[in-house]
Amino acid sequence: MNEFELIKRYFTRDVESDDDSESTDHNDTVAIGVGDDCAVLNVPVDHQLVVSIDTLIAGVHFPKQSEAYAVAQRAFSVCVSDLAAMGAEPLWFTLALTLPNTNETWLEKFSMGLFDIADEYNCILVGGNTTRGPLSISIQVHGAVPSGQAITRSGAKVGDLVYVSGPLGDGAAALAMLDKRVKFNDEANEYFYSRFFWPEAKIDLGLKLREIATSAIDISDGFLADLNHICTASKVAAEICVEKLPHSQHRIDQAMFVKDDSLGIKWQQWILSGGDDYQLCFTAPAEANVEALDQHIRCIGKIVEGQGVLCTLDGKEVALSRLGYQHF
Amino acid sequence: MNEFELIKRYFTRDVESDDDSESTDHNDTVAIGVGDDCAVLNVPVDHQLVVSIDTLIAGVHFPKQSEAYAVAQRAFSVCVSDLAAMGAEPLWFTLALTLPNTNETWLEKFSMGLFDIADEYNCILVGGNTTRGPLSISIQVHGAVPSGQAITRSGAKVGDLVYVSGPLGDGAAALAMLDKRVKFNDEANEYFYSRFFWPEAKIDLGLKLREIATSAIDISDGFLADLNHICTASKVAAEICVEKLPHSQHRIDQAMFVKDDSLGIKWQQWILSGGDDYQLCFTAPAEANVEALDQHIRCIGKIVEGQGVLCTLDGKEVALSRLGYQHF
Repeated sequence: MNEFELIKRYFTRDVESDDDSESTDHNDTVAIGVGDDCAVLNVPVDHQLVVSIDTLIAGVHFPKQSEAYAVAQRAFSVCVSDLAAMGAEPLWFTLALTLPNTNETWLEKFSMGLFDIADEYNCILVGGNTTRGPLSISIQVHGAVPSGQAITRSGAKVGDLVYVSGPLGDGAAALAMLDKRVKFNDEANEYFYSRFFWPEAKIDLGLKLREIATSAIDISDGFLADLNHICTASKVAAEICVEKLPHSQHRIDQAMFVKDDSLGIKWQQWILSGGDDYQLCFTAPAEANVEALDQHIRCIGKIVEGQGVLCTLDGKEVALSRLGYQHF
Repeated sequence: MNEFELIKRYFTRDVESDDDSESTDHNDTVAIGVGDDCAVLNVPVDHQLVVSIDTLIAGVHFPKQSEAYAVAQRAFSVCVSDLAAMGAEPLWFTLALTLPNTNETWLEKFSMGLFDIADEYNCILVGGNTTRGPLSISIQVHGAVPSGQAITRSGAKVGDLVYVSGPLGDGAAALAMLDKRVKFNDEANEYFYSRFFWPEAKIDLGLKLREIATSAIDISDGFLADLNHICTASKVAAEICVEKLPHSQHRIDQAMFVKDDSLGIKWQQWILSGGDDYQLCFTAPAEANVEALDQHIRCIGKIVEGQGVLCTLDGKEVALSRLGYQHF
């Protein structure tokens, strides 16, 4: 099977199809999709185009033996999460897929996973390419925001409060589990597997935050690193109450660790610097009623003058090194 | 050096800089460039967005020991060529770069090559990511066309003439040389090295063709395969005079072949199916004065009823297999 046959069989869908699962409310934005030298697209009037590209590599970003369906879903979710952080609505994506061989079973499951998750976000595959090589997946997402309304990293103001959209540390806990560095009980296994391969991109929250948040970022590098990006871009500092950071530690009360780290220290590391959570971290004026937007949102600190991120534990300043954080 | 430092050092430029080489006539189209979760971009009014993504893998698309400066230039040129085929004007690009290690000399040369070639095409780097893994480069280009004016593969009409924009076979000859499958004289070596790493994307020709061509494609897979894409999409056939196909065989009259293929057969294969030429193949009505657009353009056949590509040699039909062509 050559590249053309592969693309035709696994990555081409008739958008005019009767199948409801394939229809979105913006098929008319695609003038030319998969199958020409380029895609030709109509950006909605009075909107700006918002784009981001991400690469996932087998053995680095997911275990080599992962199921193709799950890999596709994670690759797409991780990438579309960047649109959430800008308050953008997903429209289209392109796929650059590098494959070691033409395994049709793998391809069928991968393309099924990809289209299933893209449909959930109303996002249409408009182009891409396939090449031969070590398994890697680059996805570029394209979205739109009403002109001038994108949320950036640079708008945080002194006095703003700092929020996260949900539990931190799940991504790192999941990766430790998949890499067999820790063992959890069955219920926790299932939870973390699901959190790793189906991290929910916070698109709906991002749309609501456009008129509320002063800055936002998605937590991919790790909470402290990502909040620090906001501080640097906004030329401010953040003061964080570590005990207020939401996490899922209760899910693994019966967990058994195969290495000698204590549970507590490991969770602190995962929460503060684990990354791969794809929650949003954002700032908003103190008077905004942010927690009403979603039951999982937590206020975890405030923006102050200065630079960098300052952590407190029960009201007392703590050095990051005492929290098990070393890579900052 | 972590990913942030790497991106800041090698892939971030101040577009407001005084340096003339960095200015384009559309810096104001970039609302937010490198450094946030996404880029935010202004597509020109009354224009459609045109996008394409391409991946180049070390050892597959270029020899592993190639110079970083040259690799960057080839990667960008190959990708922007797709915009030429649609008649689109380049605006922005994103880069997904996978590196085996942080070799600063390599990175400096790569980023220099990338910005130098992108400047030639007035194309601005607006985002990307870097990951650790076997060397590969994915570039997505973004351009614009006045709405409804993109040239597609599907508009060729019976009676149209078929053209190519310049010599075919150079890409395949260059790859054979780089892989040491053939040896050329010094002058030919230099020519083919340059053709491989600096294939000129036919952007200016593409813009001129918007009001003339009925269909177009860039020759990346090989002349016959790419012309067949036009025939399939346009539901027509093409009749080609093989002896009219332009090529650079005269450049290697003194070439020495290290394998046993005859010079003639090898050139026929390279011209017909070699690919990697990045010339445009296009169709236009017989009355259009196409050859006046550029001295390298050659009329090489015509569009007829039917399907597929039919070759003639000195007026007689020839089977593709007799031309050394087997992969169609």
